[in-house]
Amino acid sequence: MNTFGRNLRLTTFGESHGKAMGGILDGMPGGVKIDMDIIIRETARRRPGQSHLVTARNEKDIPELLSGLTDDMVTLGTPIGFIVRNTDQRSSDYGEMADLYRPNHADFTYDKRYGLHEARGGGRASARETLNWVIGGAIARQLPCMKNISINANVISIGGVKGSDKELATVVEAAMKRGDSVGGIIECVIEGLPAGIGNPVFEKLHARLAHAMMSINAAKGFEYGDGFEAASKYGTEQADIFTSDNGHIYTKSNHSGGIQGGISNGMPIVFRVAFKPTPTLLQDIETVDKFGNQKILKGKGRHDPCVALRAVPVVEAMSALVIADELISNH
Amino acid sequence: MNTFGRNLRLTTFGESHGKAMGGILDGMPGGVKIDMDIIIRETARRRPGQSHLVTARNEKDIPELLSGLTDDMVTLGTPIGFIVRNTDQRSSDYGEMADLYRPNHADFTYDKRYGLHEARGGGRASARETLNWVIGGAIARQLPCMKNISINANVISIGGVKGSDKELATVVEAAMKRGDSVGGIIECVIEGLPAGIGNPVFEKLHARLAHAMMSINAAKGFEYGDGFEAASKYGTEQADIFTSDNGHIYTKSNHSGGIQGGISNGMPIVFRVAFKPTPTLLQDIETVDKFGNQKILKGKGRHDPCVALRAVPVVEAMSALVIADELISNH
Amino acid sequence: MNTFGRNLRLTTFGESHGKAMGGILDGMPGGVKIDMDIIIRETARRRPGQSHLVTARNEKDIPELLSGLTDDMVTLGTPIGFIVRNTDQRSSDYGEMADLYRPNHADFTYDKRYGLHEARGGGRASARETLNWVIGGAIARQLPCMKNISINANVISIGGVKGSDKELATVVEAAMKRGDSVGGIIECVIEGLPAGIGNPVFEKLHARLAHAMMSINAAKGFEYGDGFEAASKYGTEQADIFTSDNGHIYTKSNHSGGIQGGISNGMPIVFRVAFKPTPTLLQDIETVDKFGNQKILKGKGRHDPCVALRAVPVVEAMSALVIADELISNH
Amino acid sequence: MNTFGRNLRLTTFGESHGKAMGGILDGMPGGVKIDMDIIIRETARRRPGQSHLVTARNEKDIPELLSGLTDDMVTLGTPIGFIVRNTDQRSSDYGEMADLYRPNHADFTYDKRYGLHEARGGGRASARETLNWVIGGAIARQLPCMKNISINANVISIGGVKGSDKELATVVEAAMKRGDSVGGIIECVIEGLPAGIGNPVFEKLHARLAHAMMSINAAKGFEYGDGFEAASKYGTEQADIFTSDNGHIYTKSNHSGGIQGGISNGMPIVFRVAFKPTPTLLQDIETVDKFGNQKILKGKGRHDPCVALRAVPVVEAMSALVIADELISNH
Repeated sequence: MNTFGRNLRLTTFGESHGKAMGGILDGMPGGVKIDMDIIIRETARRRPGQSHLVTARNEKDIPELLSGLTDDMVTLGTPIGFIVRNTDQRSSDYGEMADLYRPNHADFTYDKRYGLHEARGGGRASARETLNWVIGGAIARQLPCMKNISINANVISIGGVKGSDKELATVVEAAMKRGDSVGGIIECVIEGLPAGIGNPVFEKLHARLAHAMMSINAAKGFEYGDGFEAASKYGTEQADIFTSDNGHIYTKSNHSGGIQGGISNGMPIVFRVAFKPTPTLLQDIETVDKFGNQKILKGKGRHDPCVALRAVPVVEAMSALVIADELISNH
Repeated sequence: MNTFGRNLRLTTFGESHGKAMGGILDGMPGGVKIDMDIIIRETARRRPGQSHLVTARNEKDIPELLSGLTDDMVTLGTPIGFIVRNTDQRSSDYGEMADLYRPNHADFTYDKRYGLHEARGGGRASARETLNWVIGGAIARQLPCMKNISINANVISIGGVKGSDKELATVVEAAMKRGDSVGGIIECVIEGLPAGIGNPVFEKLHARLAHAMMSINAAKGFEYGDGFEAASKYGTEQADIFTSDNGHIYTKSNHSGGIQGGISNGMPIVFRVAFKPTPTLLQDIETVDKFGNQKILKGKGRHDPCVALRAVPVVEAMSALVIADELISNH
Repeated sequence: MNTFGRNLRLTTFGESHGKAMGGILDGMPGGVKIDMDIIIRETARRRPGQSHLVTARNEKDIPELLSGLTDDMVTLGTPIGFIVRNTDQRSSDYGEMADLYRPNHADFTYDKRYGLHEARGGGRASARETLNWVIGGAIARQLPCMKNISINANVISIGGVKGSDKELATVVEAAMKRGDSVGGIIECVIEGLPAGIGNPVFEKLHARLAHAMMSINAAKGFEYGDGFEAASKYGTEQADIFTSDNGHIYTKSNHSGGIQGGISNGMPIVFRVAFKPTPTLLQDIETVDKFGNQKILKGKGRHDPCVALRAVPVVEAMSALVIADELISNH
Repeated sequence: MNTFGRNLRLTTFGESHGKAMGGILDGMPGGVKIDMDIIIRETARRRPGQSHLVTARNEKDIPELLSGLTDDMVTLGTPIGFIVRNTDQRSSDYGEMADLYRPNHADFTYDKRYGLHEARGGGRASARETLNWVIGGAIARQLPCMKNISINANVISIGGVKGSDKELATVVEAAMKRGDSVGGIIECVIEGLPAGIGNPVFEKLHARLAHAMMSINAAKGFEYGDGFEAASKYGTEQADIFTSDNGHIYTKSNHSGGIQGGISNGMPIVFRVAFKPTPTLLQDIETVDKFGNQKILKGKGRHDPCVALRAVPVVEAMSALVIADELISNH
């Protein structure tokens, strides 16, 4: 099912090379002034074709909001429907590879799942779907309860290299020149969330964040706080000692990443998402067609060599949807 | 909400030091012969007090199945209700620390969430809740559609050490002697799952597994296939090249961990879960009480020094619930 | 799925002649004092064997509450698990009719749905399931937000006769003597609900009440306000004219039954539920067995001749669950 | 929440005088050829302005399908997004009554629920929302599993008069002339549904139908089979005696309306829905404004005097959505 969330729910549709992408954000309370510029800014951040490091697909990606708002852009409390036309429907680009299974793509598994080969650029498997999520997140971020909450994601390593933006760009450019692609890690920090947000058992805050992040294309791992590093440590090293300051209780360290028992503790929420290299390569690569015949897949076109770069606003948007849903559900 | 799953749903209840744990497994088809020994075996695997490495709480943990089955233990297609009495209700053990916030426990966050301090061994935050999950998973594993699917989890490292069971035990024992605890990583391999199981978008197979695993107490990270390692690699290194053998299409390598685009590709599903060290230490530790006063929390009693050891059957049970739900939903 | 509700959810299990009935009420806020006597009183109201007008099955039907409460019966905010043992498991009573399809029972349809004949008194189709609902409703009624809300259901007609309790009893007794059964109508009035409770579109308050009421065994119809009578009327006859009294706005009449556009308007909620005659007769009746052979079903045993009589506390309980869910969801 | 259904789910948006109506139908299997003419035909059936008996709002109401389909109109198994532009946004028509509470409309209850007065023709409370449902139903009807199932709704009485279409039209015309409106009853018959479709307990087939029907604007009551009439009858009069014909088991009568215990029995499903008179009158009527001041609401414009007439395709569409969902879920 194409729905995410509990009391704030985003339901989406759209194939990457179909007529339009779109969705319905249901559960927004009424009386919230929405700034269209924030939505456009966020969609621009994820749009391809902005620099030489990302693909040149020229779509404006400006959503049309169809309901749920007054003429003055104040929410009515009713569902907000939106669409974005796909102006760049080049499904023929994929024509000759319609029968080939691209390695690490969803072509093969979709065929097994749905029993037919849908050649429009991967259909729902395309990263273009995340445009819908960015729009939903950009609206959710404007809720009054989100006002004092900052959500900031950044690429912290590419191809194993940590460094400045320039150093990371160098790694991507080198991969591009070789027709190769490269993986990366995004770290997201959420500040300003009060203690007490989240749930025990099956709706732990970090479990919902994990679910959200692992829904993003090419995500391979999720960790929060010290994450996998914590598995190498001793309890005495990991203890976040409580202290207090004029009655305000907090922890001296943040190995927990701001969440204990599935509920926020008032410290910054910190998590990381690992992204594999873009599976599309600009090199010839062996594969098979749907009948099992050995074939060569020609590398061509223009694709993002590092999906982690474009995933930054998507990580933020999905975080915003999770946090806003929790705040609406808890209030 | 205390419900997990979509068409096969487990709803649970129970505080660790209350009268009973229990649950309802809804969605099991009729006509399935259930072997009670398998359920008892699985609950025994997670039970404390089995060796000197895990806590000595002596509970038999044998569930009573109250509905959904004929006298011959064949499912009726109706919900299976079950309970396990808590025979070891020593809530007084926690008496003197009722006002203290134990570091890295959920005491503080629960207070912030629910506004009252529930001292019965952590209530729903206790790992005892996972007993319900193991029971649910042990029933789900017996579905005919699960017959050829093996789910095997193992601890692959403790405190950063990889090695034989004996080497891992040495690390745990050393931590115990110091009154310390230690983290670990569990790897789970699911074999026999056909290609085509899972969903795109918000219900990707790995996103559901991530949600399930991050629901387990003390879990700090989830990755599948090459996981975080993939973020350090290039596309040419990560490509799982397709090949075929008498019409059977498969990949030569399994960097993808058996899932592409959220759907199984017929290769083994491989994922890892990182667990932090048990937060309870047998050492005195600084903390504050609920009024913010500095206090010393005395280390005493017996607790598991390595939660990853007991989480193994829980990882398998939650995997079984996810996979069985997908198989029922996909039919 | 055996779950009812959105943010206050009741999940149930139990076959009428199995080991136990039971359920989990999830979503109750913490800090609510629960009076066990209210639960016992409500279950007693629906219990058979109280008078000569209802069946003689002697079960105490006192639930054991297993979780979600302190020793002082204050809710913890965690799910409340409960069970009621079935002390009267006379499945042999049904032995000889195991292969016969009882007219207007669910025997035939269950066989078609599940492919096996489950002879334990109808299994989940039995009215005994409503015991779970009454328990859930009796807990929900004790929420602070329900304190000023009264929910009162009454049988208003039996076999087409409207009259005093004594006149209605005469109709039932006459039917009993003939080994016959008889239908009836329950009217329920909910007072004290403030205006503004409910939702538009698919979760209209009356649609949720209809869903709840039509879930009760033997229910054949639901109407609110003037109901079917309204279909015979003109708009000028049906208008509920608004007036005001010191700023308090209300309607002069209540043809609407307290709901407009799916949302309460502050007037009493009034609805009626039609119940068919109990399908079990104490007369011989023609039928077929599962192989299509003509058979005679012998009338014997003791059964309620008028299911509407026992449904009164069930109607109230389901109303309480719907209203409490709405109040929790809206707050 | 603006979502209906379980495994086939319709999520909708749109205010009647906003930019567009629309929705997402999620859960349609792939490979189904969709005939656009069927969708247009169904939307035309509910469109105002077709005869002198219904309002003259001239909207073409032809949906644009934006996703989920190949160019040849074959479903992809992905969600089908659709929109219908509102070409007739005359919100000024409602200008002077923006502060008045129209009797039996949702103005007052919406204000109480949402705390703001949304003057665009009632927003989500408008019957225009049912256009989305008709589109969803028209797609669902085209599923292969629906091919042998006929769903036929008809107005069987208006203002208490049963008779030919001409006799019913006379009643409506007489009401129109007086500026009055009139109620009516729709009966719907579903034929061709095999036995065994539906569920026990909380998802009974008739409970889901009741929920669906009571979601339609102006619906006041639902009954199936003999319905309220059954409450006046004795068990001996209501028994649907089983018989068989070459192994095919069926009932001689159909008091049950094709459903026993929440599951279809292979006989025609028969239910009725009562609709109140349209609340809008073309007469002056007393009311109050939002401040409680006594006012006169002027009757003007053109409105449907009998909402039951236009509800016919909506009853069929909602029936189709329920039945298709059950068939997909039961497979």
